[in-house]
Amino acid sequence: MSISNFRADLGDIPVEDHPRIVQQRSRDHYWYSPVLKAKLDHVTAEVVVSPRSNEEVKRVLAAAFRHGVAITPRGAGTGNYGQAMPLSGGAMLNLMNMDKVLDIKKDRVRAQAGAVLEQIDHQTRAAVDGELRFHPSTYRMASIGGFIAGGSGGVGSVRWGGLRNLGSILGVKVITCEETPRELDLVGEDVLKVAHAYGTNGIIVEAEMPLTQAHDWVDMMVGFDDFIDACRFGGAVALQDGLLVKEVAPCAAPIPQDYFNRHKPYIRDGQSVVLLMVAPVAVDAMTLFIAHHKGEMLYRSDLASEEERRRLPPIYELAWNHTTLRALKVDPTITYLQTRYPTVAHVEKIISILGDELPMHIEVGRQDGVVMYGGLPLVRYTTEERLNEIIRIHEENGCTVFNPHRYTLEEGGMKRTDQKQLDFKREADPKGMLNPGKMIAWDDPDFDFNAGRAWLFDGLNPVSAA
Amino acid sequence: MSISNFRADLGDIPVEDHPRIVQQRSRDHYWYSPVLKAKLDHVTAEVVVSPRSNEEVKRVLAAAFRHGVAITPRGAGTGNYGQAMPLSGGAMLNLMNMDKVLDIKKDRVRAQAGAVLEQIDHQTRAAVDGELRFHPSTYRMASIGGFIAGGSGGVGSVRWGGLRNLGSILGVKVITCEETPRELDLVGEDVLKVAHAYGTNGIIVEAEMPLTQAHDWVDMMVGFDDFIDACRFGGAVALQDGLLVKEVAPCAAPIPQDYFNRHKPYIRDGQSVVLLMVAPVAVDAMTLFIAHHKGEMLYRSDLASEEERRRLPPIYELAWNHTTLRALKVDPTITYLQTRYPTVAHVEKIISILGDELPMHIEVGRQDGVVMYGGLPLVRYTTEERLNEIIRIHEENGCTVFNPHRYTLEEGGMKRTDQKQLDFKREADPKGMLNPGKMIAWDDPDFDFNAGRAWLFDGLNPVSAA
Ligand SMILES: Cc1cc2nc3c(=O)[nH]c(=O)nc-3n(C[C@H](O)[C@H](O)[C@H](O)COP(=O)(O)OP(=O)(O)OC[C@H]3O[C@@H](n4cnc5c(N)ncnc54)[C@H](O)[C@@H]3O)c2cc1C
Ligand SMILES: Cc1cc2nc3c(=O)[nH]c(=O)nc-3n(C[C@H](O)[C@H](O)[C@H](O)COP(=O)(O)OP(=O)(O)OC[C@H]3O[C@@H](n4cnc5c(N)ncnc54)[C@H](O)[C@@H]3O)c2cc1C
Repeated sequence: MSISNFRADLGDIPVEDHPRIVQQRSRDHYWYSPVLKAKLDHVTAEVVVSPRSNEEVKRVLAAAFRHGVAITPRGAGTGNYGQAMPLSGGAMLNLMNMDKVLDIKKDRVRAQAGAVLEQIDHQTRAAVDGELRFHPSTYRMASIGGFIAGGSGGVGSVRWGGLRNLGSILGVKVITCEETPRELDLVGEDVLKVAHAYGTNGIIVEAEMPLTQAHDWVDMMVGFDDFIDACRFGGAVALQDGLLVKEVAPCAAPIPQDYFNRHKPYIRDGQSVVLLMVAPVAVDAMTLFIAHHKGEMLYRSDLASEEERRRLPPIYELAWNHTTLRALKVDPTITYLQTRYPTVAHVEKIISILGDELPMHIEVGRQDGVVMYGGLPLVRYTTEERLNEIIRIHEENGCTVFNPHRYTLEEGGMKRTDQKQLDFKREADPKGMLNPGKMIAWDDPDFDFNAGRAWLFDGLNPVSAA
Repeated sequence: MSISNFRADLGDIPVEDHPRIVQQRSRDHYWYSPVLKAKLDHVTAEVVVSPRSNEEVKRVLAAAFRHGVAITPRGAGTGNYGQAMPLSGGAMLNLMNMDKVLDIKKDRVRAQAGAVLEQIDHQTRAAVDGELRFHPSTYRMASIGGFIAGGSGGVGSVRWGGLRNLGSILGVKVITCEETPRELDLVGEDVLKVAHAYGTNGIIVEAEMPLTQAHDWVDMMVGFDDFIDACRFGGAVALQDGLLVKEVAPCAAPIPQDYFNRHKPYIRDGQSVVLLMVAPVAVDAMTLFIAHHKGEMLYRSDLASEEERRRLPPIYELAWNHTTLRALKVDPTITYLQTRYPTVAHVEKIISILGDELPMHIEVGRQDGVVMYGGLPLVRYTTEERLNEIIRIHEENGCTVFNPHRYTLEEGGMKRTDQKQLDFKREADPKGMLNPGKMIAWDDPDFDFNAGRAWLFDGLNPVSAA
């Protein structure tokens, strides 16, 4: 690897090498996890390269290939599994200068990878009164490329499912890391080769996404004395086909009291809440439904004063991993898990075992057409052993855990090789220069996922040039 | 009852009394059922009154109340359970002169009861690029008032559920039949007092319905050698949250070959088909999904020639009760059932028992958020006894039947009193002048639904003035 030869090939493509700035840009939200924090704190790249066009991306990748420099793509760096941590140093590839919305049609939008999700919606609303079907709660910062490469779903998934569902991504343009990098247009199922692949097998430079009708979503916060009633209500809302909602998230006491600073005044002691985003057309019916379920309407943005609306963050910034973020801000020892509870009874069981060690946060969603309870419970962290025990308790009780304390694709996901992504890496990144250390299948094909130990990337040091 | 005194009170409200025309207007699609045909063939009103405003409706209802004249409201008369048959004679109340679209907003439309569904969509598309969430296959003829009073769901219900779901009807304006008729605005749950009440407890004069984004839906017909594969595919489509569809209807061979005249050339012998309406944004993904399920794309309207598109009816006019209609046109001995199959295994079981006596037609839909298989199977009719046996076979195998060979609300539905509708009738139609004989709970509170015999309206002759 020769960073200087690499740099020499870049021409006038902007490069940053100030160590403090490079270190800042070598970080994502890996520190959400005390486990990852301990493992990855020292990691940094040597330079940040910020191409401005597909041609410049090709030039960077050709240089990386030639000189054996590891490339870690980066959008806004809001990923929270250390996806964008440059385990082998090398160069960060900052995509945020490529942020143009390229084409808007009534039912789809095409944008460059670095376009920020909220900015995309801003333009599609103006042009065709459309918006993205769903977005992460990091809507105001995250890039579309980072979302596709590192995210899964979010606000809107209760209606539209997630990124991995057929039809959720219409197409991506990807650039390969080869002697002569190619532009590949992937559509249909082929999109899944690079979706949620952490940029290990191609750099996404453009994406085409479906749009749906935009709404002035009404934020609601509904109180319940009993958290299980809140969950039941949340599940029932998601089953109401006629009630158009974008977000349904039950949060158990004391999460709202302790961590939702600005909303605290609206919430009584001991109350659990359900966070909702409701289409204006469904507000009256929702109000009725809440009353039926004996919920207490604590807050409605459509009835709030100007001043309240200015003061309060949008409801979605209390949800998804923003719940965790708000807790972390108050109590740095907190961490979290990502789980799936098939039924409310599963939620109830886990709470009965773990109690306040695991303040419960549910995101009601659809999984292949079936309403289910996605969990992002907080964890009052003590040791890694205890964390693993909590995971085991989940698994023993029929609940799935996607471990967010792992930086590899496989360990955070389904614990097996994604053959399509591996095959595509062979084609698009034959030397393994792209985000090394994130795809176990590439580095260590024989790794046993059931042995109960975390994989450790051999290097956490520079890849050698082939 | 005095029709002449009644008429004298009507002023210049248009009244028709030519017996042949009145008889024509005293009919709906009751003849879909050989059972209803035998029972109701002789039924007719004496006059048809066609008010042009809410004030005129009030005048008609005041006169009916005063003179004890039965009133049967009528939209387009496409109901197929004899809902609009005037069992007690009297007057037909034709609402089709009240057909104005009153107000269009981005996400809702308010129209007079006699507005035809397709005409509403025509205007909402032009104004806000919106359309009704779902409509019966009689879209091009049926009125919004008749749909709410006599229908249940249809094309679009696979995504949005049916009329009875919370949020599907935003509000209705109803006129009561009293000495001084009142205008009542029902919203929220109160809408269910008159929805699917066959006009027995108030005349709907206006309705407000939610709109969704309009699409140039692509008609598809997909072939399968095995009907159960077709059902599995249909169910799987409905579970794909990312695939925006409006219609999913598997029809078993030989239905398409024998009854889909214009589409016949596209279908091979022995093939079952699935009828689909797909949003343009989902067409590519759907094509892929069809290939995965080894379906054969037989027809796609977006690839059809101008001439084909002109020649072929829209796919939705092969679906819902249009399947039955097309069969009846070819073979007048055919009739049908309305069923619900919880799983494909139930469909398979029923087919294994009844075979070609019951050519299967499924409408895949959502029932309170859960994908299920609504059945509108054809029946090769022999006798009423055998028909009842077929119903019994369904029930014994865990399948629900909504008997479409009954003209009462209860027998065609849940076989019990709808207390809300009954209470509202006491308030809105204290003398029982509105569509007499359709609500058993009103006429015969002690009727035993489990005795296994059909209820017979006492009169099928004029109601006496109170
Ligand atoms: C408070 C908080 C809340 C969150 N909520 C959600 C949520 O609701 N749903 C959700 O799915 N995620 C959520 N996340 C995770 C993350 O914010 C999102 O997935 C986000 O979309 C990532 O976008 P980004 O631009 O920040 O990507 P980055 O963090 O910069 O990158 C993410 C991954 O993609 C790779 N990558 C980035 N750009 C490209 C590219 N152009 N081509 C190839 N690879 C690329 C990176 O190498 C990295 O592996 C949350 C995170 C935080 C901190
Ligand atoms: C081929 C075919 C296909 C069909 N497909 C479907 C389908 O997919 N889904 C479905 O739900 N139905 C279906 N139907 C039934 C029917 O077409 C629909 O329910 C339709 O919406 C009825 O509208 P209409 O104007 O014809 O009502 P009508 O038949 O005129 O009336 C229906 C009922 O409502 C009452 N009524 C009418 N107007 C008012 C009013 N303003 N106030 C109070 N009461 C009133 C009548 O007395 C009657 O009881 C189908 C019927 C046929 C023949």
